[in-house]
Amino acid sequence: DFKMSLEEIKPQFGVDQSGFDNRLSGGFIDYGAGFNTLHEDCKALVENLKNSETTSLLSVLLSGERGAGKTAFAAKIAMESGFPFVKMITPEDFVGYSEAGKLAKITKIFDDAYKSPLSLIVLDDIERLIEFIHIGPRFSNHILQALLVLVKKKPSNKDRKLFIIGTTSIKSILSELDLVDGFNVNIKLPLLKEKEEIVEVLNSISDDEATNQDIATACPNIPIKELILIAEMAIQKGGGVLSTDIFLECYETTR
Amino acid sequence: DFKMSLEEIKPQFGVDQSGFDNRLSGGFIDYGAGFNTLHEDCKALVENLKNSETTSLLSVLLSGERGAGKTAFAAKIAMESGFPFVKMITPEDFVGYSEAGKLAKITKIFDDAYKSPLSLIVLDDIERLIEFIHIGPRFSNHILQALLVLVKKKPSNKDRKLFIIGTTSIKSILSELDLVDGFNVNIKLPLLKEKEEIVEVLNSISDDEATNQDIATACPNIPIKELILIAEMAIQKGGGVLSTDIFLECYETTR
Amino acid sequence: DFKMSLEEIKPQFGVDQSGFDNRLSGGFIDYGAGFNTLHEDCKALVENLKNSETTSLLSVLLSGERGAGKTAFAAKIAMESGFPFVKMITPEDFVGYSEAGKLAKITKIFDDAYKSPLSLIVLDDIERLIEFIHIGPRFSNHILQALLVLVKKKPSNKDRKLFIIGTTSIKSILSELDLVDGFNVNIKLPLLKEKEEIVEVLNSISDDEATNQDIATACPNIPIKELILIAEMAIQKGGGVLSTDIFLECYETTR
Amino acid sequence: DFKMSLEEIKPQFGVDQSGFDNRLSGGFIDYGAGFNTLHEDCKALVENLKNSETTSLLSVLLSGERGAGKTAFAAKIAMESGFPFVKMITPEDFVGYSEAGKLAKITKIFDDAYKSPLSLIVLDDIERLIEFIHIGPRFSNHILQALLVLVKKKPSNKDRKLFIIGTTSIKSILSELDLVDGFNVNIKLPLLKEKEEIVEVLNSISDDEATNQDIATACPNIPIKELILIAEMAIQKGGGVLSTDIFLECYETTR
Amino acid sequence: DFKMSLEEIKPQFGVDQSGFDNRLSGGFIDYGAGFNTLHEDCKALVENLKNSETTSLLSVLLSGERGAGKTAFAAKIAMESGFPFVKMITPEDFVGYSEAGKLAKITKIFDDAYKSPLSLIVLDDIERLIEFIHIGPRFSNHILQALLVLVKKKPSNKDRKLFIIGTTSIKSILSELDLVDGFNVNIKLPLLKEKEEIVEVLNSISDDEATNQDIATACPNIPIKELILIAEMAIQKGGGVLSTDIFLECYETTR
Amino acid sequence: DFKMSLEEIKPQFGVDQSGFDNRLSGGFIDYGAGFNTLHEDCKALVENLKNSETTSLLSVLLSGERGAGKTAFAAKIAMESGFPFVKMITPEDFVGYSEAGKLAKITKIFDDAYKSPLSLIVLDDIERLIEFIHIGPRFSNHILQALLVLVKKKPSNKDRKLFIIGTTSIKSILSELDLVDGFNVNIKLPLLKEKEEIVEVLNSISDDEATNQDIATACPNIPIKELILIAEMAIQKGGGVLSTDIFLECYETTR
Ligand SMILES: Nc1ncnc2c1ncn2[C@@H]1O[C@H](COP(=O)(O)OP(=O)(O)OP(=O)(O)O)[C@@H](O)[C@H]1O
Ligand SMILES: Nc1ncnc2c1ncn2[C@@H]1O[C@H](COP(=O)(O)OP(=O)(O)OP(=O)(O)O)[C@@H](O)[C@H]1O
Ligand SMILES: Nc1ncnc2c1ncn2[C@@H]1O[C@H](COP(=O)(O)OP(=O)(O)OP(=O)(O)O)[C@@H](O)[C@H]1O
Ligand SMILES: Nc1ncnc2c1ncn2[C@@H]1O[C@H](COP(=O)(O)OP(=O)(O)OP(=O)(O)O)[C@@H](O)[C@H]1O
Ligand SMILES: Nc1ncnc2c1ncn2[C@@H]1O[C@H](COP(=O)(O)OP(=O)(O)OP(=O)(O)O)[C@@H](O)[C@H]1O
Ligand SMILES: Nc1ncnc2c1ncn2[C@@H]1O[C@H](COP(=O)(O)OP(=O)(O)OP(=O)(O)O)[C@@H](O)[C@H]1O
Ligand SMILES: [Mg+2]
Ligand SMILES: [Mg+2]
Ligand SMILES: [Mg+2]
Ligand SMILES: [Mg+2]
Ligand SMILES: [Mg+2]
Ligand SMILES: [Mg+2]
Repeated sequence: DFKMSLEEIKPQFGVDQSGFDNRLSGGFIDYGAGFNTLHEDCKALVENLKNSETTSLLSVLLSGERGAGKTAFAAKIAMESGFPFVKMITPEDFVGYSEAGKLAKITKIFDDAYKSPLSLIVLDDIERLIEFIHIGPRFSNHILQALLVLVKKKPSNKDRKLFIIGTTSIKSILSELDLVDGFNVNIKLPLLKEKEEIVEVLNSISDDEATNQDIATACPNIPIKELILIAEMAIQKGGGVLSTDIFLECYETTR
Repeated sequence: DFKMSLEEIKPQFGVDQSGFDNRLSGGFIDYGAGFNTLHEDCKALVENLKNSETTSLLSVLLSGERGAGKTAFAAKIAMESGFPFVKMITPEDFVGYSEAGKLAKITKIFDDAYKSPLSLIVLDDIERLIEFIHIGPRFSNHILQALLVLVKKKPSNKDRKLFIIGTTSIKSILSELDLVDGFNVNIKLPLLKEKEEIVEVLNSISDDEATNQDIATACPNIPIKELILIAEMAIQKGGGVLSTDIFLECYETTR
Repeated sequence: DFKMSLEEIKPQFGVDQSGFDNRLSGGFIDYGAGFNTLHEDCKALVENLKNSETTSLLSVLLSGERGAGKTAFAAKIAMESGFPFVKMITPEDFVGYSEAGKLAKITKIFDDAYKSPLSLIVLDDIERLIEFIHIGPRFSNHILQALLVLVKKKPSNKDRKLFIIGTTSIKSILSELDLVDGFNVNIKLPLLKEKEEIVEVLNSISDDEATNQDIATACPNIPIKELILIAEMAIQKGGGVLSTDIFLECYETTR
Repeated sequence: DFKMSLEEIKPQFGVDQSGFDNRLSGGFIDYGAGFNTLHEDCKALVENLKNSETTSLLSVLLSGERGAGKTAFAAKIAMESGFPFVKMITPEDFVGYSEAGKLAKITKIFDDAYKSPLSLIVLDDIERLIEFIHIGPRFSNHILQALLVLVKKKPSNKDRKLFIIGTTSIKSILSELDLVDGFNVNIKLPLLKEKEEIVEVLNSISDDEATNQDIATACPNIPIKELILIAEMAIQKGGGVLSTDIFLECYETTR
Repeated sequence: DFKMSLEEIKPQFGVDQSGFDNRLSGGFIDYGAGFNTLHEDCKALVENLKNSETTSLLSVLLSGERGAGKTAFAAKIAMESGFPFVKMITPEDFVGYSEAGKLAKITKIFDDAYKSPLSLIVLDDIERLIEFIHIGPRFSNHILQALLVLVKKKPSNKDRKLFIIGTTSIKSILSELDLVDGFNVNIKLPLLKEKEEIVEVLNSISDDEATNQDIATACPNIPIKELILIAEMAIQKGGGVLSTDIFLECYETTR
Repeated sequence: DFKMSLEEIKPQFGVDQSGFDNRLSGGFIDYGAGFNTLHEDCKALVENLKNSETTSLLSVLLSGERGAGKTAFAAKIAMESGFPFVKMITPEDFVGYSEAGKLAKITKIFDDAYKSPLSLIVLDDIERLIEFIHIGPRFSNHILQALLVLVKKKPSNKDRKLFIIGTTSIKSILSELDLVDGFNVNIKLPLLKEKEEIVEVLNSISDDEATNQDIATACPNIPIKELILIAEMAIQKGGGVLSTDIFLECYETTR
């Protein structure tokens, strides 16, 4: 059952975790072997940093299409790290902020992290943090420059460790902006492409395995976000029951 | 008779609805089967959100040419929702505002919405909200970035529901600006293209069915806004009577 | 005699009309059938709005080359409307204003208009109001956006009526700026192109019909502004008498 | 002798004329028939305005290459006008001014002019006033827009007359900036191109007619500014005497 | 053993050296003949300046790819100089600074240097200091202009000596920005390209010479930064032992 | 001997000359006939202005490649002028200044100059004063416009004389920026290209004529700045003696 309790994965030391709870409130599905490997890789990197005698900074860039589940994945890693300082830097907290205000808040979070023995910071949706838009293109160079430096800046005290997870759906552009180079490790979160993966997700929403199989065959390469939303809409429309036809109908209207 | 009372569709809980009243003061015409389907689809989405256990945010982008009736349609949906918090964010309220002032007001409205159990926000004429102009092109990146985040940001409290309706007449450009992706559902409101649709609208203005038929034949693919204005002008010119000739004369002068 | 008294066409209710008086201080010549038709059309539109039960906003865009007489024409319509609130928004009143100051003043005038039962606003020389220049091109996007909204914004009170006249000599560019679409009606004021039109204007300045005919033959397609200025210069040079030769001489020096 | 007294051409009514005195301190040479015609034409325009019953604003744009003598010519016309209010608006007075400060000062001068029965304003070196530079191109759009309006704005009081002289060495660019159209009359001040013109200027500096003839033959199409400077340098170098060889030597070093 | 004590190379006179200590906290490896030559060359230049009677300013630009070890190298030279004033100007200290704030701090450091008899300033990561980004391209022209002047400005007092080391990984662009010309000497720090160089570095981390040889053969042209990080990760993964296979695995994940 | 005393060429009247002293502290070498001619020409121009009855402003633009000796040359002319007011406007004094602050200081210096009977101002490194950079290109238009006016603005009092020397290494760009036209005279300072010139400079540093001849043959077309620096480095490296081999070695490292 995927409605597992989140209690088990909360960090221990009074950490501000509202941002993470919210992200994982719908539960977290480990939807297959490929996904699991990525999950384990990331956890290993966190352990690496924790145990290293010399490395004090490790950074991972998580890329993938819109709705692939990047933010949820990053939140999961953060919750499981058990680090006393975990913090999500997300554009949702910056709506209406001036560039200077945003910059000050980001800087403050990193400064706080440098004071904790073990810290994990998620830089969520980097394109939104730097206010990137293709037309122009335009972006906040001040925030970009700050991130370029911050992802490479080690805590000045040798005993402090910092793990950084960045998420983006436009990795190729971040690369042009010199930001990809700054991360030590690159991980790509794919869409749901194997039939079994899609079935696995649907199983956690509806019990009718046959229907789930049908749907999975009809909609390959779907973002998990879209899959869950459409399934919900279809169940409502179907009076509590998920049918392939209604699912496909809803699938069309969201295109 | 299309001069139906608006009283019936007012939201119940003391909501600020001046913006909506004004938009619908000329009455609301359900001008045919195609239009009715769109109307019902939208109402169903609102119901979906209201009843969902897991979905807390649903957003619809309403596109269509200038004068197609988008704002009136959005206002109608809002009035019919029965949600305690309904609010129209319209460029008409921002004339003379600075970018910062505009941003502050938009943010405030969303923050208020997050505090209500059921909220509906109309982002009217998004191109004007972001001050878009083709030459350049120029637009307020700050407001665009805020909208990019706001249309995807769920209320932090799981029990709060938010329905967002955006309207635009330049969907392809909003798409380049990454804003279309942010909406869950896309609906296109077409011009009056079937003869019956035009007749239906004219019937609500003048009783002479034959003339209405003539006019409908002569002017296919007309925005409802233009149709109503020209009919009014023609009736005045005709001393209270609508004739095809005078209608076509007025039709010419507005080109 | 074209030196008719302006007293008769002043609005009745203590309206600020300095702007209009000044524009018409040289008198107003109805120089032919074509011109007269435009004049009557405009007056009819004003009447339309006054008498309409449903229409609360009507807007006309007056285009034509530099010196064609657009501002004078708009002032004339305004004076003849008899509306209690008539106001000219002209770049001449904004010299040295900041963008914000300009915006505030424009907004104020519209807000005042919304409080009057019948209002007429002239947006004179829109390209100058938005500080447009071809090189770049550059313009004030803030003021443009305000105008884009204002020309379409109805008074919130259903009993208030607003008539807007815009003038421009670069209609094709305003069209690219999406501003032409915002106006309900488009009227083009041509240069003086018929011989009789030119003679009509000259008759109001000098009595020698034969000479006036000669000049009219020599200078087709002249802006009324230029025609009147050159005639004045020629009369001075000719010691109070208008001769074709001197007129043509002056005509050359102003090219 | 060209060292004629300036006393005779000073305006009568306590006008601020330091700007003009300075410009003409080296004397003013009427160097030939062509030049004289331009001079008389301008004086006639000033008289025209003074005597006109209907024209309240007349504007002249004086164009010509760098050093052609435009500013001196404009100053001369201003001094000779006898107008109680004559004022030169020159970039030399604006060094170190902000755009806003510059704008305020220009506006102030025009406002003062509107209060005087007869005013003459010189807008000297318009390209510098608007801070134009070819690369970009860049210029102050605010100041340009102010000038675009000011050169066409009549004094609001019918009894006030305003004469405006603009000078520029880049007329074709001012034309692209829509500024040339705003002037009623266009006058081009040529370089010294006739041999007699050059000799006339040299005569006022040195008495040796033969040498002056030689030099004039060797250097056609020279700006008067350059001619006078080089002659001075050559006389110094020649120990008080002007020789063709030394003149040509100096002529080379200034290329 | 490369864990040599840093005590020996600390400057004597109470210099602020936190920046340098931090950079060299992982030890400093002299990994071969080529590297050693560069090291000696730089030390000679420092000595040159110290002993010169006439030269008061010497500047070196250190270029090389990301992670080549430029900052560590510059820090090493600085520590070994024995100069009483050594200071690193690094973007890491400027996160969240405004352009003006950054400029003020840079200026202050140079002003302090001019007051010390012997000073050494490291301008680390110049592209970050000037906030350069390829898209646009964009950069802070104010900071660039300050650096253009500062790298050439001699202490006003003849007895003061200043040594400047700049580091960059985009020398060709700094060249377009006229900044390379400003430095007296150019030094390029290559990647680890000789097999012996790589082995030398690995020896300082792990004792198994054979494995080190294998790895060196497999990964030519690697930045020292990457080499050290991957080796650390591999050792952790290998339970404290470095194996070629695990190294290459980690090598892949960081691509 | 080129270590001549600077005492003899200091201006007499308590002038601020720190800027000039500093520039010439290494002595000044008159390295050949070509150089001497330029020197004499400039001195003659200064004398010209001093003695002229009519000319009150003379300006010279000194161009030449980086390190050609422009600033030293300008400082020399300034020191030898004997003018009571001599001032160097150099970017070195503006590091960290805002555009407005820089503008104010430049304006102040010129205003002070207008109050002195004889003034000489050096506008050193004009490209740096206007913050020019090729990419874009970018520059401070405000400062450029100020310089465009200031180099042509005569002291308002006829008895005041002002000599201006500008230096630049990008004359062709200053020409595009209309700044070259503003100067009365253009002088180009070439690199050291004749063998004798190079020998002359080396003689002032080392006594071994044969070696100096060898070096001069090997390095034609060298900037004097580079020649002196390399010679110094080579002497140090050679233990106090200048040898051709070591010179060429140092010559390579600075490329
Ligand atoms: N592994 C998962 N298990 C359960 N739900 C998931 C999982 N991954 C994502 N989701 C759900 O899908 C939604 C979208 O996921 P998420 O926001 O993490 O995607 P994203 O890649 O960050 O999208 P975006 O590109 O828009 O930022 C989330 O609200 C979450 O409920
Ligand atoms: N369904 C309808 N019934 C009655 N009147 C309508 C209807 N739709 C639109 N109208 C009328 O047409 C006018 C224009 O409609 P509306 O402003 O909604 O169009 P729009 O598509 O939002 O236009 P724009 O692109 O300019 O924003 C409204 O003032 C309204 O009176
Ligand atoms: N119908 C008319 N009767 C008499 N005079 C007129 C008439 N139309 C214009 N004029 C005169 O011509 C002058 C120029 O007219 P006006 O300013 O209205 O032209 P415009 O088209 O607005 O010019 P611009 O394009 O420069 O704004 C006015 O000063 C006015 O005196
Ligand atoms: N007609 C004249 N008689 C005597 N001197 C003149 C005359 N015209 C110009 N000069 C002299 O030539 C100099 C340059 O003239 P002026 O400044 O008027 O030229 P300009 O065309 O305005 O130059 P710029 O294009 O640089 O502004 C003046 O200082 C003045 O002394
Ligand atoms: N010679 C060396 N000996 C030991 N460790 C070194 C040496 N050079 C570099 N390192 C290590 O490699 C890491 C990266 O080096 P450094 O930061 O100096 O490279 P860089 O060229 O400045 O990189 P960037 O281009 O990112 O600024 C340092 O943290 C340091 O620990
Ligand atoms: N004639 C000279 N005699 C002696 N030394 C000189 C001479 N000219 C230049 N130098 C020396 O060369 C150095 C560089 O000269 P200077 O700064 O004048 O060159 P520049 O052309 O102004 O260079 P830049 O283009 O970088 O501004 C000076 O520090 C000075 O010591
Ligand atoms: Mg996300
Ligand atoms: Mg609308
Ligand atoms: Mg007009
Ligand atoms: Mg001039
Ligand atoms: Mg570095
Ligand atoms: Mg120099």
